[in-house]
Amino acid sequence: MSFKYAYNTRDIKFILKEWLPTAEVLGYDKYKDYYGVEDVDMIVDQVRKIAAEVLAPTAEDGENIGVIYKDGQTYIPPSFHKVYRFIQDNGWGTSNMGHETEGALPTLLFGVVCEILAAANPAFMPYVGTASGAARMCQEYCSDHVKGIFLDKLLAGEWGGTMCITEPTAGSDAGDALSKAFPTDDPEIYKIKGQKIFITSGDRDDVDNIVHMYMARIDGAKAGTKGLSMFVVPKKWANEDGSLSDNDVQCIGVEHKMGLKGSATAALVMGENNNCRGWLVGPPTDEKGNAMGMAFMFNMMNGARLDTGRMSLAVTANAYWNAKDYGKERVQGYLLTDPRGPRQTINKHEDVKLMYMLNKATTEASRALLTKCYYYQDVAHCDPDPVRKQWAQDRIDMVTPLCKAYPSDEAWPLIAESLQSYGGYGYCEDYPAANAARDCKIWSIWEGTNFIQSLDLMGRKWTQGKGKAFQDTLKEIEDFIAANKGLEGMEREMNHLAKALSSYREIQNTIWTYMKDPAKLGLMGVYGRRVLTATAQMYCGYLLLEQAIVVKKRLGEIAKDDPDYNFYNGKILSTRYYLNNVVPNVWHVEEIIKMGDTSILEASEEIFEY
Amino acid sequence: MSFKYAYNTRDIKFILKEWLPTAEVLGYDKYKDYYGVEDVDMIVDQVRKIAAEVLAPTAEDGENIGVIYKDGQTYIPPSFHKVYRFIQDNGWGTSNMGHETEGALPTLLFGVVCEILAAANPAFMPYVGTASGAARMCQEYCSDHVKGIFLDKLLAGEWGGTMCITEPTAGSDAGDALSKAFPTDDPEIYKIKGQKIFITSGDRDDVDNIVHMYMARIDGAKAGTKGLSMFVVPKKWANEDGSLSDNDVQCIGVEHKMGLKGSATAALVMGENNNCRGWLVGPPTDEKGNAMGMAFMFNMMNGARLDTGRMSLAVTANAYWNAKDYGKERVQGYLLTDPRGPRQTINKHEDVKLMYMLNKATTEASRALLTKCYYYQDVAHCDPDPVRKQWAQDRIDMVTPLCKAYPSDEAWPLIAESLQSYGGYGYCEDYPAANAARDCKIWSIWEGTNFIQSLDLMGRKWTQGKGKAFQDTLKEIEDFIAANKGLEGMEREMNHLAKALSSYREIQNTIWTYMKDPAKLGLMGVYGRRVLTATAQMYCGYLLLEQAIVVKKRLGEIAKDDPDYNFYNGKILSTRYYLNNVVPNVWHVEEIIKMGDTSILEASEEIFEY
Repeated sequence: MSFKYAYNTRDIKFILKEWLPTAEVLGYDKYKDYYGVEDVDMIVDQVRKIAAEVLAPTAEDGENIGVIYKDGQTYIPPSFHKVYRFIQDNGWGTSNMGHETEGALPTLLFGVVCEILAAANPAFMPYVGTASGAARMCQEYCSDHVKGIFLDKLLAGEWGGTMCITEPTAGSDAGDALSKAFPTDDPEIYKIKGQKIFITSGDRDDVDNIVHMYMARIDGAKAGTKGLSMFVVPKKWANEDGSLSDNDVQCIGVEHKMGLKGSATAALVMGENNNCRGWLVGPPTDEKGNAMGMAFMFNMMNGARLDTGRMSLAVTANAYWNAKDYGKERVQGYLLTDPRGPRQTINKHEDVKLMYMLNKATTEASRALLTKCYYYQDVAHCDPDPVRKQWAQDRIDMVTPLCKAYPSDEAWPLIAESLQSYGGYGYCEDYPAANAARDCKIWSIWEGTNFIQSLDLMGRKWTQGKGKAFQDTLKEIEDFIAANKGLEGMEREMNHLAKALSSYREIQNTIWTYMKDPAKLGLMGVYGRRVLTATAQMYCGYLLLEQAIVVKKRLGEIAKDDPDYNFYNGKILSTRYYLNNVVPNVWHVEEIIKMGDTSILEASEEIFEY
Repeated sequence: MSFKYAYNTRDIKFILKEWLPTAEVLGYDKYKDYYGVEDVDMIVDQVRKIAAEVLAPTAEDGENIGVIYKDGQTYIPPSFHKVYRFIQDNGWGTSNMGHETEGALPTLLFGVVCEILAAANPAFMPYVGTASGAARMCQEYCSDHVKGIFLDKLLAGEWGGTMCITEPTAGSDAGDALSKAFPTDDPEIYKIKGQKIFITSGDRDDVDNIVHMYMARIDGAKAGTKGLSMFVVPKKWANEDGSLSDNDVQCIGVEHKMGLKGSATAALVMGENNNCRGWLVGPPTDEKGNAMGMAFMFNMMNGARLDTGRMSLAVTANAYWNAKDYGKERVQGYLLTDPRGPRQTINKHEDVKLMYMLNKATTEASRALLTKCYYYQDVAHCDPDPVRKQWAQDRIDMVTPLCKAYPSDEAWPLIAESLQSYGGYGYCEDYPAANAARDCKIWSIWEGTNFIQSLDLMGRKWTQGKGKAFQDTLKEIEDFIAANKGLEGMEREMNHLAKALSSYREIQNTIWTYMKDPAKLGLMGVYGRRVLTATAQMYCGYLLLEQAIVVKKRLGEIAKDDPDYNFYNGKILSTRYYLNNVVPNVWHVEEIIKMGDTSILEASEEIFEY
């Protein structure tokens, strides 16, 4: 492949400096001595520079060298070692998880930092992300004793981390995990026995140790997810004298994947020699056989879900900006509107502009969705007012499935648009689109498939707190429309948002009707992904119009030759495109769902032989 | 990759034996002494066996060995050599192009033969397809003298063939080709000089010679496509004594592609040493500088466009059938309708059945579209009645852009559904979905991008013959609806077709209005691909309902335990799914197009910097 980092950070700066209340976040006690809004440009520019100059030059190693498994050890590209240390040592990595870390960035800033970095080497970022997830878990749920062993090492990026849930027979159905834990004389320590697969960063040669957050069933616990406990299972056991010794954790192979070839996806065997120990996190199984593991793991998984949406966004946007750079140079054919005129670069052709606009509008929508969620996270973590904390947590719960699924669903068709815009070159690995297409496909699958996200949305988030939190969000959108429906030049777009909101309520009512009817309950499964997409489109339409209010004000203040004019004007056009061409899908979905076609419910598995 | 051939031919047999008038085709003079409808099963079964036992075992060599370029020569996987000879020697290849070939199959049968074979090794089939295209061109347009040199060798599969249009600066805009041709003393022979890229089967080591159908501009001809002539440029010059000598055709490299790695995509240089000769096809440039090359090439390209749609269908369907085989074995989770019930294989889950149904319904739609076109081709070639010939030719003209673009547009999202149904395994190259996804992406690009197909549809096919042919087709659908609107149990589906037809006419009228308004003409470019998709969906909805009439009759004749019941019942369900969930897109597109949002027209190329 021929990787090129083409990331543009103008929209990120707009979000942080003009749209979201970054000042509010930076005013929280934890941050107020460190950062002000005036630092945003410096932080973004510095990270953009690191991404371009430190990370991006290593991206091709992921493809060309890849991950090598030999004699029980996994080797990642040598250049990744150096970059990993650079990111961790310079405060752009796991240390940001630390409650006590001096100068840790709030999620709102750290989220965009990770987006900017992820685009520069998407196969590298999971090494940081998994360590950060494990650090967060350790900090939140481990005993002081266990924290004492692992937390500093994790936060410093000296040791890696993972989330170990999936097993050969337990994928989407995590509850079927066969991994077992047996008590020892030490109530905190269990003997672990089991096999895990698809473990991202599960083995690597750039750190001294790997801290696995490991799901296993304590002997005698319930079947299903309720009986799973979480254990800290290090690759090497940390002895009291600081030395490390073998903990009977073996890597038995790595996957040969379609993309993300520099990211190690390991199969692990724990306790093959009956000598693997893990630290129990939280209390042991209660007398009914219930355990706490999944509750803890959801915290980590929710972080990983945002990571997934963010990586999808980053790779999609970088593919788009590469494509438009190519389009500026490539001369081909004539404009429809000027068939006798001069031959033109393809970035002037309507159909190519459509390919770019689909990408621009949808990535801006996804970025609005994700950054709004980062903001809610900071409020939920830092606000002194418990009511406001809860308000923010409710919003996080609602948007998390959207943040995971929408950007990862859209990545595949959007990168295909970028690829298509190159013509035949797009299919050649010497150009960057093919690689981006191969990289992105895992993100609709891992961390809970996008169908599972839709069940989370419809089955849990719609009704959480008796449905009040979700209805409050819809009411917030309704109020926004009422207050802004006359937004000059955007009246049609506001109407479309209103129509989408109304359709959305109809969608909810229809699905609820189906859920109460055993004969139609299965339609929830048939329509789930459409519902999730419609939710994201409606919500993103709202966010883009919220941005448009700010943008229109700025456009009123600047001249057409202002260097910012094209950015702001482009935001208006992409918002118009999104509201007029994407958001109408919400009422189209309403129509399909109300029709309630039962052909799939009636289909026996035998008909799919043909 | 772990390739598996999982093709099912029941729908193909239904099409040939129960839906299309195969007897009419086999009754034409050319075929009546050779085949009857009773031979269909035997032919299909035999080809299915060859595909499974001869072709499929070589599929992995395309990925694992690939195409190797060394010292000016391209080497294709050794197993492909043997298979190529097998296919050609046994009458399943290029010989079917020959007007005089004893027992050549009609297009209707040969088309499905190629589908069944293509699925078994998609990277291999272009070696046959390109030779066949060159053979057809040679037969149709070359002088007897040139035919005498090349035709028998091509038909026998002894020599390969290509279509040489694309150059580094001339992709979608073929008219910008820089290749030149200079007269010699022999009026049929020209000196050729130029460079071609992306030439499928452009170099290979399994045949003695390669016959390039080569586009070049005779010195003094017009600029653009009108000035291009076609030449037969053999890799080796065929001397009168039967020996071959160098013709100054050099392969300078092959592409490293995302998929189809066993298919050679060559860059060629002709006349580097001023010693490349080609045979002019047709008359020389006229006094105004006009040439005939593109007119000839369109014949070959139209064949290649059907090939493209067919390969897309074949790879999509094989990926789907692999996925459902996996789904029969993979146990995971509980049904929504039975959350406390036993754990189930995933092929019983509603969301997975949706993934299968999307594939089943759309591949059946594409197969109906393609086979109908094969039928029209046989009528156009063989029918003694010139009026009926023209009727069939009109239909071919209309459906060719649909046949190329619809299956190739759908392949990408549909294979992603199959891939997704495997969970994480789908992303691993040990399972077949990833490979299918990588293979399919070229087909929306080559042989005229799918956007170019949409321009062909709207700009040429809608208005050909003053629009009569196209309107006749719409009238045919209207008459069908009038005659069958009461089809029992399919009333809603018939209504949807009627609604789609009415919307479709509105789409046409709206686009025509835009075409007359210079300020909105560009919307034709913005909406083109949506229009093409809507055309295919409306037309395929019609074809599936036409099939449903036959199916319903058969269902009335058989019992539920009949071995054919699941096939026929499945056809009804996929038709219902398609008409209720896919065809509504036609009126959704109408709504979007009528809205006429101009955000893309207003977008300068500068806004895409962000």
